[in-house]
Amino acid sequence: MNNTHALAEFLAGLRYEDLPQAVVERTEDLFLDWLGSALASQGRHPIPLFQRYARKMGPGVGSSRILVDGSGSSAYFAALVNGASSHLVEQDDLHNSSVLHPATVVFPAALAAAQDLGKSGRELILASVAGYEAGIRIGEFLGRSHYRIFHTTATVGTLAAAVAVGKLLGFDSRQFINCLGSAGTQAAGLWEFLRDAADSKQLHTAKAAADGLLAAYLTADGLSGAQNILEGEQGMAAGMSSDADPRRLVDGLGTRWALAETSFKFHASCRHTHPAADALLALMQREGLGHDDIARVTTRVHQGAIDVLGRVVVPQSVHQAKFSMGTVLGLIAVHGKAGLVEFEEFALQDPRIAAFREKVEMRLDAEVDAAYPQRWLGRVEVLTRDGRQLEGAIDEPKGDPGNTLSRAELEDKFRRLLAFAGARGDAEATRLVESTWQLHELADLQAFS
Amino acid sequence: MNNTHALAEFLAGLRYEDLPQAVVERTEDLFLDWLGSALASQGRHPIPLFQRYARKMGPGVGSSRILVDGSGSSAYFAALVNGASSHLVEQDDLHNSSVLHPATVVFPAALAAAQDLGKSGRELILASVAGYEAGIRIGEFLGRSHYRIFHTTATVGTLAAAVAVGKLLGFDSRQFINCLGSAGTQAAGLWEFLRDAADSKQLHTAKAAADGLLAAYLTADGLSGAQNILEGEQGMAAGMSSDADPRRLVDGLGTRWALAETSFKFHASCRHTHPAADALLALMQREGLGHDDIARVTTRVHQGAIDVLGRVVVPQSVHQAKFSMGTVLGLIAVHGKAGLVEFEEFALQDPRIAAFREKVEMRLDAEVDAAYPQRWLGRVEVLTRDGRQLEGAIDEPKGDPGNTLSRAELEDKFRRLLAFAGARGDAEATRLVESTWQLHELADLQAFS
Repeated sequence: MNNTHALAEFLAGLRYEDLPQAVVERTEDLFLDWLGSALASQGRHPIPLFQRYARKMGPGVGSSRILVDGSGSSAYFAALVNGASSHLVEQDDLHNSSVLHPATVVFPAALAAAQDLGKSGRELILASVAGYEAGIRIGEFLGRSHYRIFHTTATVGTLAAAVAVGKLLGFDSRQFINCLGSAGTQAAGLWEFLRDAADSKQLHTAKAAADGLLAAYLTADGLSGAQNILEGEQGMAAGMSSDADPRRLVDGLGTRWALAETSFKFHASCRHTHPAADALLALMQREGLGHDDIARVTTRVHQGAIDVLGRVVVPQSVHQAKFSMGTVLGLIAVHGKAGLVEFEEFALQDPRIAAFREKVEMRLDAEVDAAYPQRWLGRVEVLTRDGRQLEGAIDEPKGDPGNTLSRAELEDKFRRLLAFAGARGDAEATRLVESTWQLHELADLQAFS
Repeated sequence: MNNTHALAEFLAGLRYEDLPQAVVERTEDLFLDWLGSALASQGRHPIPLFQRYARKMGPGVGSSRILVDGSGSSAYFAALVNGASSHLVEQDDLHNSSVLHPATVVFPAALAAAQDLGKSGRELILASVAGYEAGIRIGEFLGRSHYRIFHTTATVGTLAAAVAVGKLLGFDSRQFINCLGSAGTQAAGLWEFLRDAADSKQLHTAKAAADGLLAAYLTADGLSGAQNILEGEQGMAAGMSSDADPRRLVDGLGTRWALAETSFKFHASCRHTHPAADALLALMQREGLGHDDIARVTTRVHQGAIDVLGRVVVPQSVHQAKFSMGTVLGLIAVHGKAGLVEFEEFALQDPRIAAFREKVEMRLDAEVDAAYPQRWLGRVEVLTRDGRQLEGAIDEPKGDPGNTLSRAELEDKFRRLLAFAGARGDAEATRLVESTWQLHELADLQAFS
């Protein structure tokens, strides 16, 4: 039995009763966090393009919901549009060691399929856990070489979404193997778009969620797939990785709950900027520094941060600014935070941010790099105007499992996301929060519309 | 200006008036050949799965046609189902040096979009030429290392389909660049399925056609894509090739018509078997041999043939038999041909085929490998029962540009394909043939339904 088979056996056998209470609750936390991210993109480019595409190509009615406008469609198009929506404002979750954003691919597919199939909240939770557990391990398996060129959330996301939908469809292990085959052979997504601030990130998560759902539905109807898509000689690792580690595919199945290792985003920027942002903030608070006390900032980072962030020099869009280390640290230094509002109002317009950006450089650090991706260490060196050399360090950014957000903080983040977008009123926000905290008791999922 | 920009300029500027008459006629030839392949899959697994999926996820009406059942749908689902359909019976065209099957990805997308947009036959021809010219050059660019792991028709097919639809949408060069970016970042398809005889080949062509169409429609609505998806540091070549040759992207634009280099399939098997099949047939006819006169056959082949065919030992399905060199040569030796009927009736059941299969081996040949993929040389060594060592050689398999099929032969192949599947009657076949030969005069494309 190869590792894919072992993973498939685990997925087929997983029952709601097997889930620790903390995992169930964390799934509800992640779901609310995701729902806020999806709704926060309402009306923002390029989401209306995906809505129009769904209306043009899909049916005008259906029991699966496109969240940004509340309309009904088929499960495929709900997964597509919600997948695009939930990754736009860069506020969705991240699993560190896999460098996977699981929520933005798993929940769009799982919710769309669950609504289509008339499933309960518990079935959605179980399916989502299956998607997280599989996706995170597959991301860890493909390793850092994969992430250097490929957007793991797009590629691995296709398999994670497929697994979640497959669980809703009641797959046995043979079906999960076929489903992974059909999902893995659709896995795509290159980082090249980043340097042009192109819209592909939304295309990637939209397609991962929708393609994964497609793989699962076709598997349920009898489509066969490669039996060893992950490790085979012409499979994913062979084509898209040079450091794949097969043991990661089955790491702690049934005892390690990878879903619970997922981080919530506190800053509204690329996660690779967060350790440095938290370290700079801690240093400035400790030393009582203002932004104009600082002459130079050197962030000591892992190679992945340089690969993803290295290209953006002067950002041309708000989205690109979220991938600019200098801009993020500028917002932290000047405004004390780097939330959606700060990006929208200050990232491109505030001359203090532009000036601070020029003071920031990234440097590869052996210790930080060795710890990554298991640990995302924040290390900054600051030269003050008056000539002092200071160092700031954090070992676990805000939002990481050991430094997580409470339900009150999550609810606050959710309400701020909706308010930012002008999406839904307070009463509706309250209703969505309450429905989410009751997810494990809900008989159906029509509340999420 | 990089090569992608130069290619985009060419695509944007290409006019129907620029096409040589021979290219227009060859496009009609290729279209008929494709149409026959699509209709021949009617009712055969896994095509009904794609039909049911389209009905479940898509609208029940629309001006784009799903060929196998004549129903209307949106352009996306027509491209999806027709893309799956036209690659099933392994009778669609092939471009040698790119190892791309262009028809099965370009025509489904182009016809679906042209019907949706109310375009004419000339516009369909122009769009298809654009798709072929771009797709073939991108396939040549990505090279042999890409094809070793990735199914080029799936990956590159996504871009070829996107270009064809982009031409129907009237793209300028800037839009073509964005469209290539959005298509290239969706490009996927791994060979791993082959060793399991899984259904992914149909999934690949379905998705390539549909994803390419999606990329083009979203581009038309304003979605941006990576500006250098082909050659960029985190683009297709960086992630999926180790021998990419950028000069191939612009090779002879406007003077070399790559579409006219495409081969028609004469045997109903993987193209990698055809050179050996023709060489064996020629040798047997020359020497007056029957199948039982032969004790051993050694086919001297290129590495790509070993990569694709090497895994299949005893085929478990008709589809897998098309990738079994021993089975194909057995059909040639016993029945004198390896058409759809021979595969269906004899490939798995006839003990003479099984016995002949055991006599066949493939061996890498330096001369054949050096000529590939520009030329597909056929070389066989035969040891007869009475101890003679014989050699057979052909330099251009039947169906290649220098040894092509006439319109009468194409029409005959088309009718045999339809008869094989019991698809449409004689009168309908005649109408489709006549419509195709008049494609350059048709005001709309509703004839193809």
